[in-house]
Amino acid sequence: MKATFYEGDRRFSVSEKAISTPGAGEVRIKVAYCGVCGTDVHIYHGMMDKRVSTPVTIGHEMSGEIDAIGEGVTDFSVGEKVVVRPLDDRGAQASDKGHHHICKDLKFIGIDSPGAMQQYWNVPAFTLHKLSPETDLKLAALVEPLSVACHDVRLSGLNDGEVAVVLGGGPIGLLVALVARQTGAEVYISEVNPKRIGLARELGFAVINPAETDPVAHLREKTNGFMADVVFEVAGVQPTLDIMTELAGIRGRIVMVAIHGQPKPVNLFQFFWKELQLIGARVYEREDYDKAIELITKNELPFESLITRVEPLQDIQRVFEDIDRQPDGMKVLLDCQA
Amino acid sequence: MKATFYEGDRRFSVSEKAISTPGAGEVRIKVAYCGVCGTDVHIYHGMMDKRVSTPVTIGHEMSGEIDAIGEGVTDFSVGEKVVVRPLDDRGAQASDKGHHHICKDLKFIGIDSPGAMQQYWNVPAFTLHKLSPETDLKLAALVEPLSVACHDVRLSGLNDGEVAVVLGGGPIGLLVALVARQTGAEVYISEVNPKRIGLARELGFAVINPAETDPVAHLREKTNGFMADVVFEVAGVQPTLDIMTELAGIRGRIVMVAIHGQPKPVNLFQFFWKELQLIGARVYEREDYDKAIELITKNELPFESLITRVEPLQDIQRVFEDIDRQPDGMKVLLDCQA
Ligand SMILES: NC(=O)c1ccc[n+]([C@@H]2O[C@H](COP(=O)([O-])OP(=O)(O)OC[C@H]3O[C@@H](n4cnc5c(N)ncnc54)[C@H](O)[C@@H]3O)[C@@H](O)[C@H]2O)c1
Ligand SMILES: NC(=O)c1ccc[n+]([C@@H]2O[C@H](COP(=O)([O-])OP(=O)(O)OC[C@H]3O[C@@H](n4cnc5c(N)ncnc54)[C@H](O)[C@@H]3O)[C@@H](O)[C@H]2O)c1
Ligand SMILES: [Zn+2]
Ligand SMILES: [Zn+2]
Repeated sequence: MKATFYEGDRRFSVSEKAISTPGAGEVRIKVAYCGVCGTDVHIYHGMMDKRVSTPVTIGHEMSGEIDAIGEGVTDFSVGEKVVVRPLDDRGAQASDKGHHHICKDLKFIGIDSPGAMQQYWNVPAFTLHKLSPETDLKLAALVEPLSVACHDVRLSGLNDGEVAVVLGGGPIGLLVALVARQTGAEVYISEVNPKRIGLARELGFAVINPAETDPVAHLREKTNGFMADVVFEVAGVQPTLDIMTELAGIRGRIVMVAIHGQPKPVNLFQFFWKELQLIGARVYEREDYDKAIELITKNELPFESLITRVEPLQDIQRVFEDIDRQPDGMKVLLDCQA
Repeated sequence: MKATFYEGDRRFSVSEKAISTPGAGEVRIKVAYCGVCGTDVHIYHGMMDKRVSTPVTIGHEMSGEIDAIGEGVTDFSVGEKVVVRPLDDRGAQASDKGHHHICKDLKFIGIDSPGAMQQYWNVPAFTLHKLSPETDLKLAALVEPLSVACHDVRLSGLNDGEVAVVLGGGPIGLLVALVARQTGAEVYISEVNPKRIGLARELGFAVINPAETDPVAHLREKTNGFMADVVFEVAGVQPTLDIMTELAGIRGRIVMVAIHGQPKPVNLFQFFWKELQLIGARVYEREDYDKAIELITKNELPFESLITRVEPLQDIQRVFEDIDRQPDGMKVLLDCQA
């Protein structure tokens, strides 16, 4: 089989490797597609060299078919289509208060242990979610990031008829926007990248470019002063932190999806004054995967438009170089059998 | 009647004034006691000169008896004991989404219109809450700040058996701690002022002095790593902002009670990582007043200990000078009939 390895210093290798037998409680997956995530690009950039031990196979946004079953696994059979929820929460403790998806000892599969950018992949059976036989495996590679979006919207408590603003129209922001709109909300996206603005507009969203239009004044006018019920911070920059508290109306909820590595100035006065809430959101829980799979299975949302291109696994080095050069696209998938 | 006036520049005057007839929809209250609030001290310091128009009678933490009834007021009678919920929300609009206590056009009575530091006070009847005849009117002057605490604890969703940390053991912090403990929580207070530490310990609280003990390490040990379910930020300084995100356990709620005038650095990574929530809290709603009145009426909590001293209304200038010189005390009450 073919496997790819991040070797450090912006280099991937591709090599032949023996197909290994799944251990007890594991299954072997024949990986169909694996999306490239922002985190994978971070790893490629060497930003996570302390956490990963090279050479390492990365990748966690995948779809595939069960290829072999390990000892003691009873609920799955060969040939079934599946996706993996890449959270190894076996170290969860009482002090995690039942929130296993963010437990202190969480291991993220594809970062802390080998990932899906290879032809065959052994994973613990408890990470699997079944897909129906007719599911398009390209779309199914979006289940992982779509589950992030489902989690974010669920934690926001967004209701039908509410106004939502999504700050940042990258892959996660756009998926959040799609799920928010499907929930019945009126959705605005704020984005600075012209290509991404174009795509979001094609998908029918009201898009504000903060370089041209003041998002706060614009929203005030559009909503008659009601402002947003929910703001999703999915850009990860200071300018969006500066306006998130202005965009939210009275008792508005702000969901912190973006990862801010350093403490940053936040207008706490607005939290007091308007009784705002800030809701931290990280990855997903089982029910978010169920919801994402349902959405992908129904395929009523324009998920196709988010797949920028599909590239053969063995071209991984070029794929990452291309993404680096042109970060305008949405999801690039690796075809793990090509 | 005697009335006091903030004249600007740290000066109060006391003068005789005619008792006026309550207008339509108003009642006249014979004010019993009026507590001095941090906001009143701010006004005295000239920090709110833009908002108040001098000379002005301030004061909003009061108790009293109905002395006369204006036209159209039917639910009240002379002699009844009452407190005022000093929120004039008559300007509430649809864009306030039903949250009238924080409506955009809210007028705070005692800041934006004349307050209670006088012998007789005319107020709209809709601001009144009745007290039972046996209520101690000294304690009843604590209803307003106690309602703040009831609001904060209610918005936190604090449950019996949970761990709460109160950052700042001033009057508001201590009231929050009392209400949190009454809710069944295990309460820790962090405070730096030795006198206030002493009082909080006398009241049976576990008090951490961050100048001596690292609150984060201490809480980790005491809670076996579970950390706080709820953190109340009631100090208003950067050091408490720095630790609030460390003190909160997984999915912990942080209630922002303190007023931070400027944007300040917040560790947003912790919000993401532990799925924390930040909950802004401002003043109170009707039900918080009801709850505070119930607590004062039952008088099972050590409210007496929070009343540092009672001073005659006409000594208002000296009272503010004393508070300025010795900010160690809790509540100083003005006896408005002395
Ligand atoms: N909470 C989680 O579990 C989770 C999961 C996945 C990703 N994330 C985080 O979510 C964020 C978004 O992920 P992504 O993959 O979509 O990243 P991305 O970098 O592709 O998207 C961010 C977008 O924000 C836009 N942007 C930059 N400045 C802006 C501004 N001033 N106003 C409006 N938009 C602006 C960028 O042009 C970009 O399109 C990242 O911070 C990522 O780390 C969090
Ligand atoms: N949300 C609301 O509606 C509302 C209502 C009333 C008051 N407030 C605000 O609540 C806050 C508290 O009010 P207060 O009247 O009790 O004020 P206060 O100033 O008397 O109390 C603050 C306390 O924090 C302590 N402190 C300072 N640095 C500290 C540190 N590093 N660690 C621990 N404690 C520290 C101080 O010693 C003081 O005792 C203020 O910011 C006030 O403006 C808000
Ligand atoms: Zn991902
Ligand atoms: Zn007050």
